[in-house]
Amino acid sequence: MNVIREPLAEKLFKPGIGEEMWSFANGLYPYCRSITGNGVRQTLNDVKKVIDLTIHEVPSGTPVFDWNVPREWNIRDAWIKDPSGKKIVDFKVHNLHVLNYSTPINGKFELAELKKHIFTMPDQPDLIPYRTSYYHENWGFCMTHEQMLSLEDGVYEAYIDSDHDPNGSLTYGEYFIQGESDETILFSAHCCHPSLANDNCSGVSVNTHLARALASMKGKTRYSYVFIFAPGTIGSLTWLSRNGDRIKNIHQGLILSCVGDAGGPTYKRSQKGDALIDKAVEKVMRDNSKEPNIVDFWPYGYDERQYNSPAFRLNVGLMLRSRFGLFPEYHTSADNMDFIRPEYLEESYKTALEVIDIIENDYKMVNLSPNGEPNLGKRGLYGAVGGDKKEYDANLPMLWMLNQSDGTKSILDIALRAKLPFPRFHRIAKILEEYDLLEYRK
Amino acid sequence: MNVIREPLAEKLFKPGIGEEMWSFANGLYPYCRSITGNGVRQTLNDVKKVIDLTIHEVPSGTPVFDWNVPREWNIRDAWIKDPSGKKIVDFKVHNLHVLNYSTPINGKFELAELKKHIFTMPDQPDLIPYRTSYYHENWGFCMTHEQMLSLEDGVYEAYIDSDHDPNGSLTYGEYFIQGESDETILFSAHCCHPSLANDNCSGVSVNTHLARALASMKGKTRYSYVFIFAPGTIGSLTWLSRNGDRIKNIHQGLILSCVGDAGGPTYKRSQKGDALIDKAVEKVMRDNSKEPNIVDFWPYGYDERQYNSPAFRLNVGLMLRSRFGLFPEYHTSADNMDFIRPEYLEESYKTALEVIDIIENDYKMVNLSPNGEPNLGKRGLYGAVGGDKKEYDANLPMLWMLNQSDGTKSILDIALRAKLPFPRFHRIAKILEEYDLLEYRK
Amino acid sequence: MNVIREPLAEKLFKPGIGEEMWSFANGLYPYCRSITGNGVRQTLNDVKKVIDLTIHEVPSGTPVFDWNVPREWNIRDAWIKDPSGKKIVDFKVHNLHVLNYSTPINGKFELAELKKHIFTMPDQPDLIPYRTSYYHENWGFCMTHEQMLSLEDGVYEAYIDSDHDPNGSLTYGEYFIQGESDETILFSAHCCHPSLANDNCSGVSVNTHLARALASMKGKTRYSYVFIFAPGTIGSLTWLSRNGDRIKNIHQGLILSCVGDAGGPTYKRSQKGDALIDKAVEKVMRDNSKEPNIVDFWPYGYDERQYNSPAFRLNVGLMLRSRFGLFPEYHTSADNMDFIRPEYLEESYKTALEVIDIIENDYKMVNLSPNGEPNLGKRGLYGAVGGDKKEYDANLPMLWMLNQSDGTKSILDIALRAKLPFPRFHRIAKILEEYDLLEYRK
Repeated sequence: MNVIREPLAEKLFKPGIGEEMWSFANGLYPYCRSITGNGVRQTLNDVKKVIDLTIHEVPSGTPVFDWNVPREWNIRDAWIKDPSGKKIVDFKVHNLHVLNYSTPINGKFELAELKKHIFTMPDQPDLIPYRTSYYHENWGFCMTHEQMLSLEDGVYEAYIDSDHDPNGSLTYGEYFIQGESDETILFSAHCCHPSLANDNCSGVSVNTHLARALASMKGKTRYSYVFIFAPGTIGSLTWLSRNGDRIKNIHQGLILSCVGDAGGPTYKRSQKGDALIDKAVEKVMRDNSKEPNIVDFWPYGYDERQYNSPAFRLNVGLMLRSRFGLFPEYHTSADNMDFIRPEYLEESYKTALEVIDIIENDYKMVNLSPNGEPNLGKRGLYGAVGGDKKEYDANLPMLWMLNQSDGTKSILDIALRAKLPFPRFHRIAKILEEYDLLEYRK
Repeated sequence: MNVIREPLAEKLFKPGIGEEMWSFANGLYPYCRSITGNGVRQTLNDVKKVIDLTIHEVPSGTPVFDWNVPREWNIRDAWIKDPSGKKIVDFKVHNLHVLNYSTPINGKFELAELKKHIFTMPDQPDLIPYRTSYYHENWGFCMTHEQMLSLEDGVYEAYIDSDHDPNGSLTYGEYFIQGESDETILFSAHCCHPSLANDNCSGVSVNTHLARALASMKGKTRYSYVFIFAPGTIGSLTWLSRNGDRIKNIHQGLILSCVGDAGGPTYKRSQKGDALIDKAVEKVMRDNSKEPNIVDFWPYGYDERQYNSPAFRLNVGLMLRSRFGLFPEYHTSADNMDFIRPEYLEESYKTALEVIDIIENDYKMVNLSPNGEPNLGKRGLYGAVGGDKKEYDANLPMLWMLNQSDGTKSILDIALRAKLPFPRFHRIAKILEEYDLLEYRK
Repeated sequence: MNVIREPLAEKLFKPGIGEEMWSFANGLYPYCRSITGNGVRQTLNDVKKVIDLTIHEVPSGTPVFDWNVPREWNIRDAWIKDPSGKKIVDFKVHNLHVLNYSTPINGKFELAELKKHIFTMPDQPDLIPYRTSYYHENWGFCMTHEQMLSLEDGVYEAYIDSDHDPNGSLTYGEYFIQGESDETILFSAHCCHPSLANDNCSGVSVNTHLARALASMKGKTRYSYVFIFAPGTIGSLTWLSRNGDRIKNIHQGLILSCVGDAGGPTYKRSQKGDALIDKAVEKVMRDNSKEPNIVDFWPYGYDERQYNSPAFRLNVGLMLRSRFGLFPEYHTSADNMDFIRPEYLEESYKTALEVIDIIENDYKMVNLSPNGEPNLGKRGLYGAVGGDKKEYDANLPMLWMLNQSDGTKSILDIALRAKLPFPRFHRIAKILEEYDLLEYRK
């Protein structure tokens, strides 16, 4: 039975998908997400309109390994009024203005006292920072440094209408596509950042549309696929804690974050460093980009931290455009919908499909005519007039496949050794399999 | 019993060998070789005048793995006459003018029709290209692009007096020298290219003279040696198919091709990449050249393609001066006897002998005085006045040999670690063995 | 039971130690050391004033592996008088003036005859060279090349009052500190060079003061420590030959030589190349220096030659400032007390302590909360307001330790992967162990 499949990257890529993903992200942008609360629910409900997402609610207080699901945070309004009674910051204008997970407050404060609860960025004085206080009770506001400097002495009124509900829950979503095998490829995006376009909306959007594309292949892919949308850290830990039996099936995985800006592409390796996912993403990026930014694992970042922790050691990498933490718009109000563009979302989407093609076709083939080179000419597989330069390039991946396919090297291994793009090896492996020159043996 | 041998590179190298090899190649140059036919026979008969070659004839049609020995091709004459009856190309002037393995033709053609059977190189308009059509029936001529452009309309007469004899045979030659062991070192040169000096005659000539030199050591070498002269691809496949029982004895091997020009030296590694032959050739080239061109295996080239195929995986590399396919004279009429020079043939010959020295002396020795350094002074092996700088250089390979010879590292391994020329280690290993400071233990 | 220890480099380093070590070296400088004799005894007696050294005397003639302990050399006086009777070189002015181990002489010589026994350095004409003739009987003098050129013809009187006593002995010293385990870390300095400051006195001084510092930890270190002070080659061979049963306990070792000048730092690896000592010294040097000079083992140098010989293969490296043989003052009268400085002795001392910290804390820890990241916030181990950049740096080594501690990677392995200074990992490993987040399991 032949094993090499049609390239998904060709089959599932449709022009205009970039615009579609940008519009979807644009719809998500205004929601005030956090690690719990209605912002996450609004986001997952939007996803559910595209794919048949299963949404889970896990009660506050539920033990999750070394943690507990926190009380659910919701916020309705927040503002500061200056001594003259004018609103100078307003949550309804930009949800970054509130310290995420802030406790409620309603009071009057001298400017000096108020400032203890104001976060700004002196180095980027015209931007609002994104700040959180999930596990330490505090109230606060974020504003531009310029605005803070302009504040005059006097008594200010601070109002935050939020609550932390001990009877609430944490919300996450999951979408599973059964393949021929139960072995599963995991894609995951966090959904806990408020109005930040690249660092959240882009990942959720690409993850959603990738899931929709693969759903059209249901039952026909080699591997099963699971798409996770969960709040960072506590969300992925919750998923891990509730899926102990399925974790052993996770073959490879990829986190999608910051996948919409003009920088990069960037890939952060799994802890293992040379897992199949690592080799696959690196190969695709090197095939398509002049200088992709490939970085070793380090223990800051997104949910790869959890998936790669000692108890799990899943082969999960992180795909990005610009590297988080290094682009100036990161975690500021400048990470808005202008910062991400359809063409970059599209590139990320296409990269993911090409990575899937490598994983789905990761076979070590055996050359069935291994005594020297087979007579390719008599099969019409070889150029007719010896010495022509064009045929050289055309035949090269075929000769590599035949020479290297001794059952010890995968198609990817061979493409890597040949330093030529993977899709050329994918295509010729399929042809050679059809000509009974290659075979997969378990 | 002592195992380290006298250096062959010193013993078997004789001045003037370069001139001798060039003259021999010059004699081969005019023959119209192909993968079968009288050109090969003429060539092998010349070789037989120097060494006692065994010449094999394998009937056309004989199955050879996935192939069959083709019908035997011979050509007697070929020309094109222009509309005025003037011969404008003539096989007797240059045998590259005919498409190698061309079917016969005798007819008149309008220029446009004739051009479908003419091969030229627009990028190198003053040279005749070398083109073949072994496995696809076709007739054709090769000429300079300039000449083709100068042809005026009219009716041309094309004549090729060739035939493909189904009762013919494929011819190859072999010369075997028995050593102390049946384990065999293979040297191979192809003999199927017509008047191309570097890409054929040079390899045949060096292979012949190397065989003659080693013949003088018959029975006294550690390994046996086989020298093969066969048409490319089908010739080496034929040898492999008829020598199944001997293949397991092939310890290391080297293809000689394009070994006479001023470029390089170049070495293309075996498929394995770090076989003894690879390490040996690289070491010799790095000892002797500033910047040898060492390239990984790839599945284009000469008969290393067959020897390294999955069923055989022999440790066979390819030694060259300029890298085939990259020098402008390659497969053109410019690859003539001026392009190869005695001094470069001589360097190739010497390199091969030095490689043999490494292989013949590839022993992991054991230091018999391993408790610290032995007292070299009392044996007269060490400089007398401590602190002198000249003795430092002189003693260094000796100290390396003693320190590293714990039975796990070969002399080559030690020379590689020390980053000093192999012959210095060869010499001192021999001395230390004679002083009972080193011993070889199976 | 907790295994991570307090950093010794902090505990045992005391300011002013550099001045103390320089003064001690200054006291040693004038002694006329050799591989045997009273110069070694004077040196070891000085060491014994600082640490309770055990001094061994091994009779001349004692077999030592492939060697014998030589006759004991002592010298009382030596000079040359010119034709006018004026002393032109005088051992009492500089002991380098005499060929070390010179036989006695008392005679008159024509200048030409005398010159056969004079050693100079034409390339460094204003310096006296250091020359020895341990194993070849000879008499001789060393002087500046300038002085030799100025000598006028005539009859010179040469006088050397030395003797080689067949009933003498070779002297070496040893200091052992028992730790929790018998596994032992070896530190060794040679003590056979006469008035050379860097190439002898510096090593003896740092070795002595390191021993004194570790003595204060007696019984409380993980490993035992042995400090050896022995003449080069024959001295270390003698120690090895008399301690066969203890050699198997040597876990790691370090030779100290040329540890007082402004160059370097330099580290020469053990023969193995990637032993713990190699990784530890390299890490400390890279943590503290911009461009440390790390060189592979080669079989010239100091007693690492003996410790790394095939029968022993101890993991012993060599720590230096400038690399021996390459600095112009090496083995000349310019290697005097001005050439070494307190601050460089101090750096070498501190480096050794930091290396010991790595070795003593070389544990592969296990994360006890391995299901994702533990909740560090609830333990007060993590910054309170998410998004602050300062906390990032502070937390990084902690997150690395937790992510990597799966029982397969040592603290050093983790620091190397993280490319951050070892002491940060040492400190946080200790804290995490105290918080029951890390544990050592045998």
